[in-house]
Amino acid sequence: MSAPHLDVEQVEAANTAFYEAVEQGDFDRVSDLWLSPSDLGIDETYHDPADAGVISCVHPGWPVLTGRGEVLRSYALIMANTDYIQFFLTDVHVSLTGDTALVTCTENILSGGPAPADGGAPGPLVGQLVVATNTFRRTPAGWKLWSHHASPVLAEGDDEEDDDTAA
Amino acid sequence: MSAPHLDVEQVEAANTAFYEAVEQGDFDRVSDLWLSPSDLGIDETYHDPADAGVISCVHPGWPVLTGRGEVLRSYALIMANTDYIQFFLTDVHVSLTGDTALVTCTENILSGGPAPADGGAPGPLVGQLVVATNTFRRTPAGWKLWSHHASPVLAEGDDEEDDDTAA
Repeated sequence: MSAPHLDVEQVEAANTAFYEAVEQGDFDRVSDLWLSPSDLGIDETYHDPADAGVISCVHPGWPVLTGRGEVLRSYALIMANTDYIQFFLTDVHVSLTGDTALVTCTENILSGGPAPADGGAPGPLVGQLVVATNTFRRTPAGWKLWSHHASPVLAEGDDEEDDDTAA
Repeated sequence: MSAPHLDVEQVEAANTAFYEAVEQGDFDRVSDLWLSPSDLGIDETYHDPADAGVISCVHPGWPVLTGRGEVLRSYALIMANTDYIQFFLTDVHVSLTGDTALVTCTENILSGGPAPADGGAPGPLVGQLVVATNTFRRTPAGWKLWSHHASPVLAEGDDEEDDDTAA
């Protein structure tokens, strides 16, 4: 096992690579960065009662997506409907325990939709403040994304009255 | 190590216990169910470069909270401002790999705020649809919560146009 700070650097690099792949609309790279049961040496035809390595994903405001089929279809859909997207990551924090790493970060997103069918100008750029928890798993092929949960930040500390029933 | 299906049952029980502790306003139990570095045998005075076992939490619409101080203060605040809260968990899914378990679930929340200071009736009950990703870590003291990320479901599959820049 490598030194802790090198592990953390590798996890940060995998996290950055994931957002860059989405920015570039590189579906194959996104697909490769998400964990597969085969990355863990699990035969994909075997039904594991613990669902080891089964991925899950929550896009902002969405319900949970589970398994590579649902998750990767959502990225294909997002990429097809996004002409431009850029993530400015801030507050990146890694907590690494054994072969699992939790990354939390703020995704400052700037995005634009496709041009309308009548050939007009592309849609306006929209800014979004989103926070994410990304869980990575160490595999022989590097750190792979096991879970991504992203959600809109609706207020920053000034609306405790609205949010105080959350848990 | 126990059989996979027994591990999954233990993780589900820890997940249920966490929500019950919040429902009951049992701060000590909530505090105990969140992972401590000492649960992993880490001396809390040691600064681990990998921040092993450092917890994080995102309440719906909130920014990321990191570390036991911030996270537990948020629960104290939520409990102080909530007279009644009940979670009806659905779609509970566990993916367990090694000593880490990812639980995704839908929190169907019914909650009510405190009565106003003038002694009137308690605030009205409010329903919320929230999804959560909870990451648990196996410890000698049982499965402990390493990360909780909860977010509002803003639409269920019928507003892809609005959400298609999400990632």
